Amino acid sequence: MALSVKIEPKFETNSKATELYIGVDVGGTRSVGIAASRDGFVFGYNVGGPANLQIDGFSSCADTVVSIVHKLVPPNSLLKCVGAGIPGARTKGDHEKLSKLISSSLGCKAIVTGDVELACHACFPSGDGVVVVAGTGSSARAISGGSIIARAGGWGPLLGDEGSAYWIGLEALRSVARAVDGSGSFTRVCEAIKERFGLSSFDELVSITMDLKRDQIASLAELVHEIAKAGDEVSIEILRRAGSELGTIAGTVAKRIGRSVKIALVGGVFNAGDYVKLPLLEVLRRIGIEATVIEPKFPPCVGGLILAYRACGIELAESTIQNLEMSAREAFIK
Amino acid sequence: MALSVKIEPKFETNSKATELYIGVDVGGTRSVGIAASRDGFVFGYNVGGPANLQIDGFSSCADTVVSIVHKLVPPNSLLKCVGAGIPGARTKGDHEKLSKLISSSLGCKAIVTGDVELACHACFPSGDGVVVVAGTGSSARAISGGSIIARAGGWGPLLGDEGSAYWIGLEALRSVARAVDGSGSFTRVCEAIKERFGLSSFDELVSITMDLKRDQIASLAELVHEIAKAGDEVSIEILRRAGSELGTIAGTVAKRIGRSVKIALVGGVFNAGDYVKLPLLEVLRRIGIEATVIEPKFPPCVGGLILAYRACGIELAESTIQNLEMSAREAFIK
Repeated sequence: MALSVKIEPKFETNSKATELYIGVDVGGTRSVGIAASRDGFVFGYNVGGPANLQIDGFSSCADTVVSIVHKLVPPNSLLKCVGAGIPGARTKGDHEKLSKLISSSLGCKAIVTGDVELACHACFPSGDGVVVVAGTGSSARAISGGSIIARAGGWGPLLGDEGSAYWIGLEALRSVARAVDGSGSFTRVCEAIKERFGLSSFDELVSITMDLKRDQIASLAELVHEIAKAGDEVSIEILRRAGSELGTIAGTVAKRIGRSVKIALVGGVFNAGDYVKLPLLEVLRRIGIEATVIEPKFPPCVGGLILAYRACGIELAESTIQNLEMSAREAFIK
Repeated sequence: MALSVKIEPKFETNSKATELYIGVDVGGTRSVGIAASRDGFVFGYNVGGPANLQIDGFSSCADTVVSIVHKLVPPNSLLKCVGAGIPGARTKGDHEKLSKLISSSLGCKAIVTGDVELACHACFPSGDGVVVVAGTGSSARAISGGSIIARAGGWGPLLGDEGSAYWIGLEALRSVARAVDGSGSFTRVCEAIKERFGLSSFDELVSITMDLKRDQIASLAELVHEIAKAGDEVSIEILRRAGSELGTIAGTVAKRIGRSVKIALVGGVFNAGDYVKLPLLEVLRRIGIEATVIEPKFPPCVGGLILAYRACGIELAESTIQNLEMSAREAFIK
């Protein structure tokens, strides 16, 4: 489900102030906010700049949310609550501090969580499920009845992120090192990496990688996928191992749900399709878990909306979900 | 073999200028130079500051060598050649550029190589052998008849260094992440790391590790060894895998020597003894290589001396090696 058009807010015509609930998905490349009524009618959405708590700090992250919200609150409306997901906000303390900052700035209730948790609420607004996120980083969550009950992965590039795009990129670079050492094979991965970095000798790889940024390494994952499609065994094996790693963290949290789980796969790594998905499901099968892959029900910003409803004690009725689906269709194109 | 006392140079009393050959081992914490005659009589040694080509650049590394050499050349002596090993000097281009800088500054022949290569010449001044270095980083070399004929590993913290102290430290941190996720066990490693970093919650681990320097992570390897000695299964398993990783790079280069090889194990990781050595040898055995572990014959600076002799076309006679052993005994305490 990708955002495509900005719809015009449709406000109720009676004189009573419209109660407004807003969900904000702060992202690493951009942020998206969505505004809706108490019963799930979407009024509009707004796109803003990126932020990350570990990089930008508390006040800058709060400001990002506040400026997106401001543009979504029309006259004669009453902002009730904002639910936001912010990357890098890991601890309960982070969430509370950010909630307070946003709340005091907007004069309404606010609830903040991590970006992955937001995606969980959007994928499984009701019922149980597992969400595996594999973008630049990787992690898995189990959600049950609106609460995150288990998490695995998400420990960052140094301690974790196994199976992420960053991990895949590093494995590609390592496969070059092994080929040069003589313990691996020279395949198209080596050629492609030599070309990508303009290397005259593979010895240059060590000093070049010292300066590579995390997203430059992660961007190699697409290259690996391309080469895998052309039949390269080393690339196929890297993607297979990425899938297995993601299967391991998925299995760790899935056990908390039961033997039969719904699973949503979110993030750019899954563009590699069956190269990654089949080994992921195979790991789950091996530990006795039957997983059904589902499409995420909503984009992450709707997860923020759901959080905002819950923070105000509003039960997520089936009709609200239907209204969100129906009216969100005008704002989003699948 | 550790350096301990500085001996007084003993110069020949005849009026002819003494021909001097100098070996310099530039290190990450300090550098050591040793001066000897053409036939292996050691005149003296000198200790200087550290340097690394990747950190300090060409002229600073050359200066480090030159200043150590200056203090080793007494009046009425003729400096013939300097052989030096410099960490971070990986490529042939690096070696040539450094040789030229040192040569033009000292007005004598100079030959430069990497620090690991220097250790190889010191471990196997004649004959064949494999050297595995596992300190902060890790790598392996095969040496035959005075030439490095194969190398593996040494790709730095991002692409390689498997089995190094840095790798062991990271694995310890990752074992904490897995314990928190629920896919691993809480053992003494978790307690020790919580204490070492003064964590109030394991969630803090992600942000703390972002700021950790490479040697801070590497320093955890000693902690892992201590806990392994106390019987902790997770620590023992980390050291076992470190040994296997080192066995893999050792095997890659050992194949180039033959089925029966002498192997020297250099660097702090081997302080963990059999926890690391036995799985290393087991990997070699599995690929059909019978390895005999030997003690390094000389400290690395003597490797520089050997390089200097060879650069001047001086064959390394058995008597020269004997002289070096005998006279070096006065300068070094085993």
